[in-house]
Amino acid sequence: MKKYTDINDITNISQTINEAIQLKKAPFEYKNLGTNKTLVMLFFNASLRTRLSTEKAARNLGMDVICLQINNSWNLEFEDGTIMNLDTSEHIKEAAKVIAQYADIIAVRAFPSLKNKDLDYAEVIINSFTKYANIPVVNLESATAHPLQALADAITINEFSTNKRPKVVLSWAPHPKALPQSVANSFVTMMQLLPVDFTITHPEGYELNSEVTKNTKVTYNQDEALKDADFVYVKNWSSYKDYGNILSQDENWMITQKKINNAKFMHCLPVRRNVVVEDAVLDSDNSIVINQANNRTYAAQIVLKQILEELNT
Amino acid sequence: MKKYTDINDITNISQTINEAIQLKKAPFEYKNLGTNKTLVMLFFNASLRTRLSTEKAARNLGMDVICLQINNSWNLEFEDGTIMNLDTSEHIKEAAKVIAQYADIIAVRAFPSLKNKDLDYAEVIINSFTKYANIPVVNLESATAHPLQALADAITINEFSTNKRPKVVLSWAPHPKALPQSVANSFVTMMQLLPVDFTITHPEGYELNSEVTKNTKVTYNQDEALKDADFVYVKNWSSYKDYGNILSQDENWMITQKKINNAKFMHCLPVRRNVVVEDAVLDSDNSIVINQANNRTYAAQIVLKQILEELNT
Amino acid sequence: MKKYTDINDITNISQTINEAIQLKKAPFEYKNLGTNKTLVMLFFNASLRTRLSTEKAARNLGMDVICLQINNSWNLEFEDGTIMNLDTSEHIKEAAKVIAQYADIIAVRAFPSLKNKDLDYAEVIINSFTKYANIPVVNLESATAHPLQALADAITINEFSTNKRPKVVLSWAPHPKALPQSVANSFVTMMQLLPVDFTITHPEGYELNSEVTKNTKVTYNQDEALKDADFVYVKNWSSYKDYGNILSQDENWMITQKKINNAKFMHCLPVRRNVVVEDAVLDSDNSIVINQANNRTYAAQIVLKQILEELNT
Repeated sequence: MKKYTDINDITNISQTINEAIQLKKAPFEYKNLGTNKTLVMLFFNASLRTRLSTEKAARNLGMDVICLQINNSWNLEFEDGTIMNLDTSEHIKEAAKVIAQYADIIAVRAFPSLKNKDLDYAEVIINSFTKYANIPVVNLESATAHPLQALADAITINEFSTNKRPKVVLSWAPHPKALPQSVANSFVTMMQLLPVDFTITHPEGYELNSEVTKNTKVTYNQDEALKDADFVYVKNWSSYKDYGNILSQDENWMITQKKINNAKFMHCLPVRRNVVVEDAVLDSDNSIVINQANNRTYAAQIVLKQILEELNT
Repeated sequence: MKKYTDINDITNISQTINEAIQLKKAPFEYKNLGTNKTLVMLFFNASLRTRLSTEKAARNLGMDVICLQINNSWNLEFEDGTIMNLDTSEHIKEAAKVIAQYADIIAVRAFPSLKNKDLDYAEVIINSFTKYANIPVVNLESATAHPLQALADAITINEFSTNKRPKVVLSWAPHPKALPQSVANSFVTMMQLLPVDFTITHPEGYELNSEVTKNTKVTYNQDEALKDADFVYVKNWSSYKDYGNILSQDENWMITQKKINNAKFMHCLPVRRNVVVEDAVLDSDNSIVINQANNRTYAAQIVLKQILEELNT
Repeated sequence: MKKYTDINDITNISQTINEAIQLKKAPFEYKNLGTNKTLVMLFFNASLRTRLSTEKAARNLGMDVICLQINNSWNLEFEDGTIMNLDTSEHIKEAAKVIAQYADIIAVRAFPSLKNKDLDYAEVIINSFTKYANIPVVNLESATAHPLQALADAITINEFSTNKRPKVVLSWAPHPKALPQSVANSFVTMMQLLPVDFTITHPEGYELNSEVTKNTKVTYNQDEALKDADFVYVKNWSSYKDYGNILSQDENWMITQKKINNAKFMHCLPVRRNVVVEDAVLDSDNSIVINQANNRTYAAQIVLKQILEELNT
């Protein structure tokens, strides 16, 4: 693997999932692979799970890790040809090239503005690092994608599936704040690659980017979607069409025990209890959100392992 | 040791002190004990000594260390059954369980509000981590206790004592800001376990929680308390009774060279010079505050060592 | 080397440059030198290059590294004899002595106020650490000096020089913000030690401290200065005489391709494109700014190596 900014950077998804499950059984087996290799993690936005799991994954492989909070202290310029006499103090061209000399792999978290759809979907920050850094770049959640989360989700579904072709549902749920589409986008893309029966359900107006959903089944009828589901993945996102806006906070879309029945409940966390999902679901044995979070480590670790192996060839 | 949130988690205090003093002589002797073990430190409040000494201690034992500043970026919900549609974005139930999967030991710093006595003395944050994390938790100063500081203090008194039963005095001193009772509480609890003649002195109204002080001698007469003292531990705290308030800033309670005579001067630091204590004391040979701070490393290290040994059995 | 707060702490500059170039070829050769040694880095100001390169350098030598952001959370008192009943919560005397017990080497970044020339040029912060810490101190850019940058610059000039005695020019350039004189000061001091033909050029009023420039050639005529230059080092600084003020933002001082011809272009970064220098220069093969940044690692590493060797004797 040469980078991991996009799910399509994985060449063999089922093999990668299996290798991740092997790593989970023996996380320190490749501790020499990362000797004298440094992962620099750049956070333009705050992070808990991603920070901890990715740092743990890198250390499991013997890497050194340096984390930098970028927010506020450091305004980067991404436009070419600008006269930089205002707020930005450094161009991404220099920043990416410089950081690349102190790192073997760069990992970047940079959320969307949710104000300018074209700018967000152009993925300027992560793509600029890929363009200028000249070393492998890992996406720790960008404006429109969260591929490490989707890989952890795929690992979790694989572990809990008792079915050759499980029914997986992605359901929108209400939330008080406008959230990115990144987790939903990457989950959709990942499900399209797996042997699952996949349905998306959300209120009218919450259609995701059709270039992402392609011909995936979509219904506005949550009850119908959830029927006989094996896995229910719940996530809020703000509108794509009416970009970045909250169109509905309809409580009827909250996930309840009654709605999901015996399906496994999935969420990327953090989750707002009794807004997105009721306590009874999260506190039941059918909730596998903690397992998902645990698999973040092994998703990151298999990605870093494949990149390190590529670097060492 | 299964956790260290409270001084009573130490089963044998004098043996623990002696082992800490041994560690100080050969800090790297157990460097293999922490191999492939990760300490995650969560700071809800800023930290200098605690951060550096605990990280040093963990690395002396060969552990990996990840530090997270939690303040502002991450609002946790501690109430059960809440509808989380306001400021809090994640419930401690998920947060603690998730972090526990990336760590072998969690250490938490979380100061009191000083506004709600019941809430502070319920120790909601540290107790929630203990309840939900399912791995050992270390207290890096909580709402009402600072057990690592008290252990470092005990080590220091042991090192400097020339007396079988030294006289130890805890004296309140003035301070411009309202401070927690945590250091005083833990020092009192620790002194009750050691073979010392222990007295507390403070202005009227500054009585500590009687469940902490129990039958310890208390006097409002500082001169009387300080007479023939071997160790004078000085610390400001805000009122427990009139909770979190400053009742007095009486300069007469400042510690002077004349007052402490040949007693050793102790303070947990940071200390406000010429408010809490005059320069002449801090700059004299009788000040052992720097030694105390040094022993923070070995207090943390013996605690982490005992926890790691328990984990490895 | 006993410390590196000042370029004059290097005893043999040409040997040090050569050793740095050797380290660059085999950066992990001395990985055992730093075993069980800790570098504590204190940042009173934000840092990207210095943070990453110095941490990388320390890890290349096998050291542990702990970074602390000091800004805001922690107000130090530097005056002797103060009654500390206002904003400052800890005196440098205690802070430096305490940190020194958790570290083997302390590195400090602390920018100038640009308001009080005497205070800035007294270098109170870095000198106080040197005075009280009792362990080696490394300057990560202080009020008036940036000796690690100057060492990286010297390494870079050595690598790219095709001339026995190259012509090196330091040219002031415009900038929208008032910047310190530290980089310029240290570059001047370094050039005075190297076998180069060195000239400074800047608008009238931008004279650097004459104790730094000594008898170095200075001209207000940029064209004349740049003529036949082999290396053009460009940097903005605010006025020393009219301390900390911006006297000119004259665009004619911006460096253009036409002005520097075939000279190598140098800058410490971050650089404001099309304000300090035009795109055509930065994007040309004559720009060696990325190489300079890379050499920050080896400048830091040779300094840390020499200090560790001194500690081990």
